[in-house]
Amino acid sequence: MSVSIQQYEKLKNKLQQIADIKYAAALLQWDQETYLPPKGNDARGRQIATLSEISHQQFTDEKTGNLLQELINCHDLSNTQKRNIQLSNDDYIKSKKLPSAFVRKSSEVINKSFHSWISARKENNFDLFKNPLQEVIEIKKQEAEYLGYSEHPYDALMNEYDKGLTVKFTDELFSSLKPELSSILAEIKNCPQVENNFLHGHFDKSLQWNFGMNLLKSMHFDFEAGRQDISEHPFTTNFSSKDVRVTTRIDENDFANMTWSCIHEGGHALYEQGLPDEEYGMPLGEYCSLSIHESQSRLWENCIGRGLPFWTHQYLPLQNLFPEQLKNIPLDQFYNGINKVSSSLIRTEADELTYHFHVMIRYEIEKLLIDGTIMSKDIPAIWNELYDKYLGVKVPDDKNGCLQDVHWSHGSFGYFATYSIGSLYAAQFWSAIKKDILNVEQMLISGNSLPVFQWLQQHIYPFGRYYSSAELCKKATGEILDSKYFIEYAKQKFYDIYKKLHQ
Amino acid sequence: MSVSIQQYEKLKNKLQQIADIKYAAALLQWDQETYLPPKGNDARGRQIATLSEISHQQFTDEKTGNLLQELINCHDLSNTQKRNIQLSNDDYIKSKKLPSAFVRKSSEVINKSFHSWISARKENNFDLFKNPLQEVIEIKKQEAEYLGYSEHPYDALMNEYDKGLTVKFTDELFSSLKPELSSILAEIKNCPQVENNFLHGHFDKSLQWNFGMNLLKSMHFDFEAGRQDISEHPFTTNFSSKDVRVTTRIDENDFANMTWSCIHEGGHALYEQGLPDEEYGMPLGEYCSLSIHESQSRLWENCIGRGLPFWTHQYLPLQNLFPEQLKNIPLDQFYNGINKVSSSLIRTEADELTYHFHVMIRYEIEKLLIDGTIMSKDIPAIWNELYDKYLGVKVPDDKNGCLQDVHWSHGSFGYFATYSIGSLYAAQFWSAIKKDILNVEQMLISGNSLPVFQWLQQHIYPFGRYYSSAELCKKATGEILDSKYFIEYAKQKFYDIYKKLHQ
Repeated sequence: MSVSIQQYEKLKNKLQQIADIKYAAALLQWDQETYLPPKGNDARGRQIATLSEISHQQFTDEKTGNLLQELINCHDLSNTQKRNIQLSNDDYIKSKKLPSAFVRKSSEVINKSFHSWISARKENNFDLFKNPLQEVIEIKKQEAEYLGYSEHPYDALMNEYDKGLTVKFTDELFSSLKPELSSILAEIKNCPQVENNFLHGHFDKSLQWNFGMNLLKSMHFDFEAGRQDISEHPFTTNFSSKDVRVTTRIDENDFANMTWSCIHEGGHALYEQGLPDEEYGMPLGEYCSLSIHESQSRLWENCIGRGLPFWTHQYLPLQNLFPEQLKNIPLDQFYNGINKVSSSLIRTEADELTYHFHVMIRYEIEKLLIDGTIMSKDIPAIWNELYDKYLGVKVPDDKNGCLQDVHWSHGSFGYFATYSIGSLYAAQFWSAIKKDILNVEQMLISGNSLPVFQWLQQHIYPFGRYYSSAELCKKATGEILDSKYFIEYAKQKFYDIYKKLHQ
Repeated sequence: MSVSIQQYEKLKNKLQQIADIKYAAALLQWDQETYLPPKGNDARGRQIATLSEISHQQFTDEKTGNLLQELINCHDLSNTQKRNIQLSNDDYIKSKKLPSAFVRKSSEVINKSFHSWISARKENNFDLFKNPLQEVIEIKKQEAEYLGYSEHPYDALMNEYDKGLTVKFTDELFSSLKPELSSILAEIKNCPQVENNFLHGHFDKSLQWNFGMNLLKSMHFDFEAGRQDISEHPFTTNFSSKDVRVTTRIDENDFANMTWSCIHEGGHALYEQGLPDEEYGMPLGEYCSLSIHESQSRLWENCIGRGLPFWTHQYLPLQNLFPEQLKNIPLDQFYNGINKVSSSLIRTEADELTYHFHVMIRYEIEKLLIDGTIMSKDIPAIWNELYDKYLGVKVPDDKNGCLQDVHWSHGSFGYFATYSIGSLYAAQFWSAIKKDILNVEQMLISGNSLPVFQWLQQHIYPFGRYYSSAELCKKATGEILDSKYFIEYAKQKFYDIYKKLHQ
């Protein structure tokens, strides 16, 4: 074994041990959301904190830095090895930029802010959250300075979720999207509205569970390498690519809730199951970016899972499962109903089109907070103004307004944009899939999503962090992200639904 | 704060962080037995190994030793603080006795032996296990030498499970028990046998589950600080005294399987829930010994859970749950059936009386293996001979003989005796409870086990490792362990059952 290989194995060994600790912490968190008895919460909190501290200590240890420094100058390694070293070195340098006193302070501030958000939301009173949130904002501003940026401090924060993402790029993207979206929405407004009341009958819990499990199976979720459980908020987590877990929630009065969250998390999970197992603990074993991760959930949830071909196959079994609720609803009415477009207050309940405005509102507010133009106290007024301007809805209170999302209380500034960007990537990938696989929709009609899964296995899953989001998109579709694919997709789908009604 | 208190807090902080890591590893193991998808096994193995290594490293660190050395000379601390220091120091000294190369070797040997036991059992062929087992035995002999002992090398191994337990004490205990047990069994043999076929009808899984959950509730298991799940082999584990988990298994053709394993694990779990929460991570927050732990499971499983008073209350609900299976079985017939005494091949299926012979056989064989009188190759012959001699049963093959238990493949030499000793403690505690609580059986008849629970909360649970098994027993019952309590209990119970039939 050459010296380089020996040192590389040493690095791999170290990073894999750190991954062991991180994944253990992730299991503790999964358990906290699924099975933890209530009195176990305090001990669990400290257990997770201890593991996080150890993994952080081990990664930021000088020895890691020295090993990386040695390896960065080794030229007799494979491309994937070099890329792992380079990415690990980037991570290491970044982690050293934040002083440990700052990291500790940051976690205290966020902890306080999270608890005050819980109270504020419960009391429907933003004032209770205002000061702790401003502290978080100050921390994030400081963090941006530590991390560094070339144009906008917010760039540094967005980079945490999608390396290379900038305000400039996102501004342009959203500027191209906004007028197009508005014009589609205006056209839809002129059409009769579709009905979706049938989604809100009574749908038995265990029947819904079974249906969701079958949806995951039909998507090629590998139950030998994962599982589904119930939690209050659906999420996907993993402890290796061979142990990927999704959760769902079931509302007996809302069939949609479970169904599309199940498909959404399933899309995330397929990505995690598809990451290369041999790169366990290494950057190439990790997902590319949150934007790409979200593209995987949205592709399945929306492009496929709210598509007519998919339901042409799935609808009959569903009708058979809930005959009373659905026997009088023909497929096209069902399809229209699950794609109803309507401005609303709550992001997580929004349709595919208005969703982007929810994100853009948050993105704009975050930019203003981070560059210091506004303070946390200004949020409710701006929030309500933008909801009126972009979505034409009046926000009745902060609970249904600026207190609805957990993200800010967690310090997740720079995160929201990846939701929209993920949807745009999804549409672009979907367009490529339709080009690459002849008759893909015909296949979906016959219940066969395997070719889609295989396309993703070929073009998205195996690369981990080898490529950036932009590079991966270019490699998979021939061009970098362009919102035109989403616009085309939206026009075709929603005009078809709404204009038909017009005729 | 005095210097002593400061240093004590430093120790506490360190030990609690180590506990965080150990409990995290325990959750990973719990998950492995309950919910882990099969392909996740490899990564899980390495994650548990990494956490174990880190907690071991942190505990055996020189810094821990120095801190303990400082504290051991501090006199201005409370008795509980001093005891925590003393016990931690004992643990530290013990952990330093095993060289790390030996610990690594040991874990490799055990890993190999475990896998070969699985194959040997599957193939019903002891030869496949013979050599790996002898390697384990050599490791355990070496371990005994490292740990040190004054009389018998096996003492060193028994001490791992019950500090202070010796061959001398156990030999005497078993010598007093053996003839008495044999004479009870001889008397029983002269009586007509009881019937228990009714236990083997068809008992619906979910009804059994509900009944088990109610049993745990009736025992005062705190479901806010614990839960029950399904696993292949029932066990109890905990990640703090506020998160104690039991598992059970359900055999639809054997009602007894779930019922008494549920009560057994429940007894273990009450002990863990009763340990002092403020001593999290400290010796006084840990159970006294495996013998005392087993006394808690056996007390509930046998003294209470196979008693007539308990079932006088529980039987009607049970009959109502399974009317078809039990409507023609009156209470006394049920009670006799669940206490049927009959020599058998499998330890885990044995009744309260013959159980001890299963343990004594293993104890005798282990002593001979550890002092080098016999080798692993000699086990099947001796095993079969002793089963014939003590229990009068012919062992048909190794699967139903010396390959039945996992313990040896895990290197758990010195463990088995604690099962019998635990039962003897249970009988002695039960005798004290009946003396201390007037009408306790009348209370159980009316479904009230609270006074028993409270007695245990007063006399057993709160002390952690403050007392040794012997001291705890003396404190709770006025004398050290004496097998006469078990003999009395056995005579009274089983003569009552069997001699009545004679009349």
